[in-house]
Amino acid sequence: MRTRAAVAIEAGKPLEIMEVNLDGPKAGEVLVEIKATGICHTDEFTLSGADPEGMFPAILGHEGAGVVLEVGAGVTSLQPGDHVIPLYTPECRECDYCLHPKTNLCQAIRSTQGAGVMPDGTSRFSMLDGTPILHYMGCSTFSNHTVLPEIALAKVRKDAPFDKICYIGCGVTTGIGAVINTAKVEIGSRCIVFGLGGIGLNVIQGLRMAGCDQIVGVDLNADKKPMAERFGMTDFVNPAEVKGDLVGHLVELTGGGADYTFDATGNVQVMRAALESAHKGWGESVIIGVAPAGAEISTRPFQLVTGRVWRGTAFGGARGRTDVPKIVDWYMDGKIEIDPMITHTMGLEDINKGFDLMHAGESIRSVVLY
Amino acid sequence: MRTRAAVAIEAGKPLEIMEVNLDGPKAGEVLVEIKATGICHTDEFTLSGADPEGMFPAILGHEGAGVVLEVGAGVTSLQPGDHVIPLYTPECRECDYCLHPKTNLCQAIRSTQGAGVMPDGTSRFSMLDGTPILHYMGCSTFSNHTVLPEIALAKVRKDAPFDKICYIGCGVTTGIGAVINTAKVEIGSRCIVFGLGGIGLNVIQGLRMAGCDQIVGVDLNADKKPMAERFGMTDFVNPAEVKGDLVGHLVELTGGGADYTFDATGNVQVMRAALESAHKGWGESVIIGVAPAGAEISTRPFQLVTGRVWRGTAFGGARGRTDVPKIVDWYMDGKIEIDPMITHTMGLEDINKGFDLMHAGESIRSVVLY
Repeated sequence: MRTRAAVAIEAGKPLEIMEVNLDGPKAGEVLVEIKATGICHTDEFTLSGADPEGMFPAILGHEGAGVVLEVGAGVTSLQPGDHVIPLYTPECRECDYCLHPKTNLCQAIRSTQGAGVMPDGTSRFSMLDGTPILHYMGCSTFSNHTVLPEIALAKVRKDAPFDKICYIGCGVTTGIGAVINTAKVEIGSRCIVFGLGGIGLNVIQGLRMAGCDQIVGVDLNADKKPMAERFGMTDFVNPAEVKGDLVGHLVELTGGGADYTFDATGNVQVMRAALESAHKGWGESVIIGVAPAGAEISTRPFQLVTGRVWRGTAFGGARGRTDVPKIVDWYMDGKIEIDPMITHTMGLEDINKGFDLMHAGESIRSVVLY
Repeated sequence: MRTRAAVAIEAGKPLEIMEVNLDGPKAGEVLVEIKATGICHTDEFTLSGADPEGMFPAILGHEGAGVVLEVGAGVTSLQPGDHVIPLYTPECRECDYCLHPKTNLCQAIRSTQGAGVMPDGTSRFSMLDGTPILHYMGCSTFSNHTVLPEIALAKVRKDAPFDKICYIGCGVTTGIGAVINTAKVEIGSRCIVFGLGGIGLNVIQGLRMAGCDQIVGVDLNADKKPMAERFGMTDFVNPAEVKGDLVGHLVELTGGGADYTFDATGNVQVMRAALESAHKGWGESVIIGVAPAGAEISTRPFQLVTGRVWRGTAFGGARGRTDVPKIVDWYMDGKIEIDPMITHTMGLEDINKGFDLMHAGESIRSVVLY
């Protein structure tokens, strides 16, 4: 079949909207009509050329929602008409990782996904002249239709709006999951969130849901304050306005350091500040942000020997097929908010404007509607 | 009273054996006759001058065992004749730290202990000319008699031999506790221990007690191998004999990385290797060793984002008054071994020989018998 997609022809260039060929699903695969997709910083990271593993031409996008149109041989958990959210972290429920209680990093299709192809080693996408186009993060939601492995699709309820729940495919789950699955924050905790963008706001609403006593937000942009307060932030700190040491200020503000801190910036200096503003004896710091290639975190080992713990999280520690449907329920039940974070919507033809809004810091999330 | 002690007059000089004055216990304090004391690398660290917090003159030593001779006003948990192990990490059971489930770092007397004095701000020790001598780590077990706060003494059974259980005051508890309290190693785990000195050997016997399937020891000195095997090591790796990357070798040897790794070297490069040889998705690395002043650990944040956890431990996460008596029981019941690690004993007059043996790498532990 043919479909319409925004293709990343090469690094650093705008996406090109074009008709592409899409082969049907092979065994274990599913054809999905994407109804909506968010534009995430990770797409930008790859498109910019900063991602050392980026490959082109490719169809980016990994934060979508849609409807199953056709299933390949052997697919048993999905059928045409099902509503689904694509998962860049699949859940095969059979590999050593899926069967280990401490991780969500299913490895079943990792090598082919990393290579931009389906598990059989080939791509379903090609240009009209036959040139293959690579998949991206196993999702490629910047195409109106895409093919994914069955294990990379979460089946969700049919009454949930695509233009909102697409955000659960990455940002919402990453932020809330970091709180619930990775940090396992206890009721009454004091926490600090560094970076009040799309991920940071979701960390904040996760912390609110977890019953925190204090939720400190840290950002250089004071314009972020009202929205963060809406999601549950209790204290705002602008590092540019702190006299003296930021870590010392945060430790004082939280009565000795935070029980949990979260980096949602990707800046390794901020990651260090996040660790060191965690409470002596028991404070844990979770790295969510993706750092530039080659960047390293560092600290004195004394910080750890005196009881701080340094962790990281990918996709919020969520097992997608199991956890994503629950988060959709939380949204539909009003336990979490998504609507205010979707600040812009546009058609596929305007997808590059979504990247411009991100660069300008004007959007929290732009969503493309097909 | 007068007692005999090995006094650290200044950094970098041998200890001087001399008669010193010792004032009796004030309220909440206890006079203890030390019967035996180990010589630990931390004593050496301070004596050498490398410890930026080291102060002189002081009576070092923090790994002792002895008998209560006299208790000050208000002491209720101890009486003359009780056998005790001094605790450089006290347990007041009342501070925010003691009441927090995740830490053993009691802060009740931290500031005065760090300043080398008793909780009232004064020292009990002085030279015969009246010059005050500082306490060290709240213990000063290189004196035949010493005074400690009640909360810094673990009461232990009377049939346990002082010359062996003194080692439980630091090395044994630090190594075994890192496994049990900090890492909480599960039965069947695969683990790597970096550094097969006195701490590393105790980590190994802790791992054996925890039912590990694989216990890899890493040390540049192949002479350490037989003793480590005796304590439970299943595989020995000499980094000097590994062709190519040590981390890659260890990951392969453990079938994808270790469930838990432990640094018992204090070398920040080794700490990095320990983290990076932990298993993707769930491997945890515990820093036990004390690094040189100013040294920093570093790694790519990707190591944490893909599921590794970086921790540290002090005194093996043990709450001394609660946990040390249990470890003494384990020794008396034959669950752990101590005797083979006490490689040398000597009188106080020969204590500097104990430091020489440590420098030469000839001893695992030297114990001074009073």
